[in-house]
Formats: sequence, structure tokens, C-alpha cells
Amino acid sequence: MTRMREEIGEIPAVVERLLREAGPSLRDAAAAIRAAGPRFAVVAARGTSDNAGRYGRYLLETHLGIPTGLAAASVLTTYHARLAWDGVLVLGLSQSGQSPDICAIVEDARAGGATTIAITNDPGSPLARAAAHVLECRAGEERAVAATKTYVAELAVIAGLVAGLVPDSPLAGGLPAVPAALASAERAGAAWVREDATADSPSAELAGATRAIVTSRGFNMATALEIALKLKETSRIFAEGYSTADLEHGPVALAQEAVPTLFFRPDGEMGASIDIVLRRARASGAHPWIVGGVELDAVRAPGDRPPLVLADGLPEPLTPLTYAIPGQLLAEATARRRGSDPDAPPGLSKVTLTR
Amino acid sequence: MTRMREEIGEIPAVVERLLREAGPSLRDAAAAIRAAGPRFAVVAARGTSDNAGRYGRYLLETHLGIPTGLAAASVLTTYHARLAWDGVLVLGLSQSGQSPDICAIVEDARAGGATTIAITNDPGSPLARAAAHVLECRAGEERAVAATKTYVAELAVIAGLVAGLVPDSPLAGGLPAVPAALASAERAGAAWVREDATADSPSAELAGATRAIVTSRGFNMATALEIALKLKETSRIFAEGYSTADLEHGPVALAQEAVPTLFFRPDGEMGASIDIVLRRARASGAHPWIVGGVELDAVRAPGDRPPLVLADGLPEPLTPLTYAIPGQLLAEATARRRGSDPDAPPGLSKVTLTR
Repeated sequence: MTRMREEIGEIPAVVERLLREAGPSLRDAAAAIRAAGPRFAVVAARGTSDNAGRYGRYLLETHLGIPTGLAAASVLTTYHARLAWDGVLVLGLSQSGQSPDICAIVEDARAGGATTIAITNDPGSPLARAAAHVLECRAGEERAVAATKTYVAELAVIAGLVAGLVPDSPLAGGLPAVPAALASAERAGAAWVREDATADSPSAELAGATRAIVTSRGFNMATALEIALKLKETSRIFAEGYSTADLEHGPVALAQEAVPTLFFRPDGEMGASIDIVLRRARASGAHPWIVGGVELDAVRAPGDRPPLVLADGLPEPLTPLTYAIPGQLLAEATARRRGSDPDAPPGLSKVTLTR
Repeated sequence: MTRMREEIGEIPAVVERLLREAGPSLRDAAAAIRAAGPRFAVVAARGTSDNAGRYGRYLLETHLGIPTGLAAASVLTTYHARLAWDGVLVLGLSQSGQSPDICAIVEDARAGGATTIAITNDPGSPLARAAAHVLECRAGEERAVAATKTYVAELAVIAGLVAGLVPDSPLAGGLPAVPAALASAERAGAAWVREDATADSPSAELAGATRAIVTSRGFNMATALEIALKLKETSRIFAEGYSTADLEHGPVALAQEAVPTLFFRPDGEMGASIDIVLRRARASGAHPWIVGGVELDAVRAPGDRPPLVLADGLPEPLTPLTYAIPGQLLAEATARRRGSDPDAPPGLSKVTLTR
């Protein structure tokens, strides 16, 4: 078993422990946010953590009502701009806590009066030292180059923080059910990925592809981008992660019969919005793979590939945690089918020091 | 000659007219921004306009010092969140002014107390009606599906607005030189694209490719994303637009000898930062095409493809206007080489109504 596969398997236990142990630090950070009453939020991260940060952006906007942006580090590190940080909440995310540019943003923001929170797997890291508040991922050492358990742990930390700020939300109510839902997602996902099958398996189709489209919208925009990144990292597939809304603005031209297409479709109003693009993709020749909730049984069309239905009843804001797992399993299985080592993809290292 | 090629050719005159005629509306909008003293900015756009908006984000942060985010429409249109808009500057961009989701953001923001500015090619459009201030692109009717002149006009409007707010900036000082620089970029770009040559031409390499990487950082992140989008729209190439910083975090694994790679490298500190990733891409087997300034003569390495040097002396914040042109010419020439009609790519329409 690869390390990547082992680490995906650890996710339910990692999140269970996180929810059990992180209470005091989450409460402290939530109290600091309440006291500061930020008017805007900025999320600073790169790579996999940037995708987790994108999830954070949707949670902050929908649950706290504060406009949120994703930081562009070069504004500070290359262009040496002076930003007005007063009244801003800054979340810096990095599993290693080593990224110099993310640290630079958090340091600058803290010096300028922002409320700063670091989300990292290493509480002794430079990022943890830079921020006023530290939320640990508590995921244990991650040895595979492709981050999996730290990604879902980052999502869980963000969900826990926002749940603490909006305790009467479906998000907060659903959080205790997440570890069991993650375990179900791993079992169902492993069966769906079916690396040993020769046909009707997503890993079989992706292993033969050089290109792929991975798409969703809203909270699961993060999932689409993250699973596309995993496919790039582990299998060198040009997998484009897209919002279904952006896909409509041009790139839907890429959907063709020969291009594997993966949708993450939660139940509800967002699912109905995604269906519009699903129909356009089918009309362009795509035979989509769909991961989603119980509505998939009704949404499925004749030319579609076998869907993965996760019937865990989680509210949509928590589905990015479960949907990530089949995606990660798919990237891992695809890499092995292609004869790549998903634990050590050529040309990549675990810690990237962008300045 | 295709309409797309004709419309690229109109860009210098479009921008010249814009700079001549837009003064009063730019001054009004700048005065409204000064009076409101916004603490945060949000840019709302999709597709090509979203790439122009990304340029705006860098200009607002570097020149006005206000943290800026890119709007996620579904937060309002699907999740029905209530955002605190007071003290926010909202730029809504759409060449057609028809996008219902962009209009919804601007309407919501205006009702919530934001300073709202529409940047559109149609002053009678719903977006223009939704915003308190309208900045026209004055690009004339754009008939090709792939937006070219309206994109550069949107960049010019944004540059003009920020120049009015920071009149002592190199950006403001360089603006009058832009029309001539655009004309030079068109001449030099057309020679560089060399559609009739069989080797050592970027359109020849791209016409034979199914995948490509287009990358830059900072102000020209917009250029990388926009040219990647043009290649997708006109030629169905999986062209990924990347920040060089993000490329380092995983996707550099995609750089291989068989994948055409296009860098936009301005002179100066940003160029030096891009060089780090340029070296990594070369080490992975890429033979990059580079569009940039006079420093390219020193930066070029033996395995590189012929670079395009634009020696117009524009300050870096204005280079996205000139760099876009060779990229657009490349997409147009690549489509024709592949036997596609760049004016009417299959499956796309000029106006996209995302909700």
C-alpha cells in the first residue's frame, strides 16, 4: 500500500481526533474574531492549502457575511505594496507552515492591525509564529508528497472555526457526523475507483488520458480544484479544475467524448445549478463521472458513467470533506495504474518555498 | 482575414480613442472612490472579463493599498448570503453587460452601501444600469466570439481609473505611450506568431498540441489566464494558465518536452522571480516561448524558442496591455492552422448568461 493510500485511510481518525481535541483553540480564535468584528477577510495560501482556503472563503462569506478575498502574495513580496490591514481577518494556511510568502503576508497583516490566524500541521513552524492565533491540523506527519489528510484536516479546522462562530448553523449541527461520513466515503470511494477493473472504472479511464476536466461550484469548487491538482501532481494529467459557472464561459469547448469529466454535485439548489452545465457537457460528448448525494439517482442520464452516491446526509457546507476522499483515491489509483509512484512524483518536493 | 484578427488590429485605435474620450467619466468615478474612501475592493466578472478584473485587483492593491478580492457569485445567487458591503468598492466587469450573476452582485452591493462601478462595452446594458458609475470600453461592436479588443479596452479603463487616483505613478506617466506600444506589439507579435512558417513558430507548435502551459505572475497573471482561455476557446487546447508561484506548488510536474510552454516575463524584480520557475521548467524538459522586455536577451537560454522582445519601455503595470496582443494573435493563428474558425468556435456563444 502506498503512503498516500495509507494517509487517505487515516482521514476519518484524524478528523475525529481534531474535533475532539481542537475545541479550546477553536474557541479562542472564534472569541478573537468576535472581539475584532472584522469587516473583510483575506485567505493566504498556496497549492493544496489554497484550495482549502477557497473553501474557507465560501464559509466566511456565507456564514459570517464578510466579503473575502484570496491573497496575491506578490503584491507584498515583489511589488512591496502597503496594504491597509486594519479591520481585516487574515487566515494563513500551510501544512508545513514554511512558505515564506504566506508568512510574509501574515506578518505584514498582523503588524498592520489585522486579526491573524494560522492553520498548519506544524505548530512550531514560522507560519505558526507569525500569526496571533494558531489552529493545528493535528494530522500527524504526512509523508506522501501529495497532501491528502492535511487537506481534509485543514477543511475540518475551518469548518470547526466557523461552526463556533455560528453555532446554530446546519454546518455546526452536522460536524459531529463528519468522522463516520468520512469512513463511509472511504469505503464507497474505494469501491467506485475500482483500480482492478478494466472497464467502467474512473481510474481506468483517467489512466489512459492526458487531459481531464474536474468541476463543481460553490463550496465544492475547492474539491474540483484540489482533485485536479492531485491528478496533475501524481499522474501528470492536464486536469483542469473549474467552477461550472466558469466552464460555461468558454472552456466548455474542451468537453469532448475523449476527455474524462468528473463532476462533484451536492444535492439541493447548487446541484440544480450544476445540472445546467452537466447537460451542456453531455451535449458536447462528455460521459461524466459524478460524485454527489442521493439526488444523483434522479439526475443520472443514460450516457453517464457509474456515479458515486454518498448518502450521509451531511449539509452541503460539509460535503467538501467527504467528496475529497473519492477524488484523492482516484488520483492515487490512477498514478499506480500509470506506473507512477504517487508518494514521490518526479520533480516535486513536499515543501515548496515560494517567495 | 478573420474578424478576430481584424479586431486585434483595432486595439491600438480603440485604446487611443478611449484615452482621449473617457477622461470625464474616469474623473467622476475616481472622485466617487476618493469620497467613499473604501477599505476593501471586490471585483465581479466572468471569463475574459474575470481576467481583466484580476489585473484590476493587482492595480488596486499595489496602487491604492486596499485588500481586494474576486467575487464568488454563487455566495449570493445560490447560497443567498447577506454580505456587509459598507465601505467596499465593487468593480463589475462584463463586455456585454448581460451576465445576470455579475449584475446581481453589483445590485446587492449598491443596495448595501458599496461604491459600485460598471466597466462594460454596452452603456445601455443591465450591468451599466445596476452600477452607480459606468465606465465604457468604447471598443465598438465585437463580432468574434473570442473577446480581444474588449479585453484590452477593459484593461485600459482600469489603468485609466487607477492612474487618475494615483497621478504621480509610473502607471499614470506611461499611459499616453500605450497606443503606440500596442501598435508595435501588434507588428512584432504578428511576425513572431509567423503562421506561415513550418518550424520555430509558436503557432506551429501549438497547432500540433493538445496541451499547453501559459504562465506569468503579478500584473501579467491576467495575461497568462487570458491567453490560456483564448487557446481553449479557439483551438480546444488544454492550455492551463498559471501563476509561476502556483506552478511551483505541484503543476510544474506538467512541464515536459512535449508540452508547449509560454511565459510572459516583464523586466525587473518580477522577471527575476519568474526566472526561477523558468529554470525549473527548462530542467523538466520544457523549451519555453517567452514574451517580455529587453532583459530577455540576457535571460534567454540555449534550448529556448525564439523570444518576443517588446522594447517599448512601458512600466510593468502597463505591460499586460501590450503582452495580450501577441497572445491573442497566437490563439487566432493556431485556430486557423488547426482548421478551426476562431470567429465562431463550436459550442460557444458571445454572451453567456450564468446565474
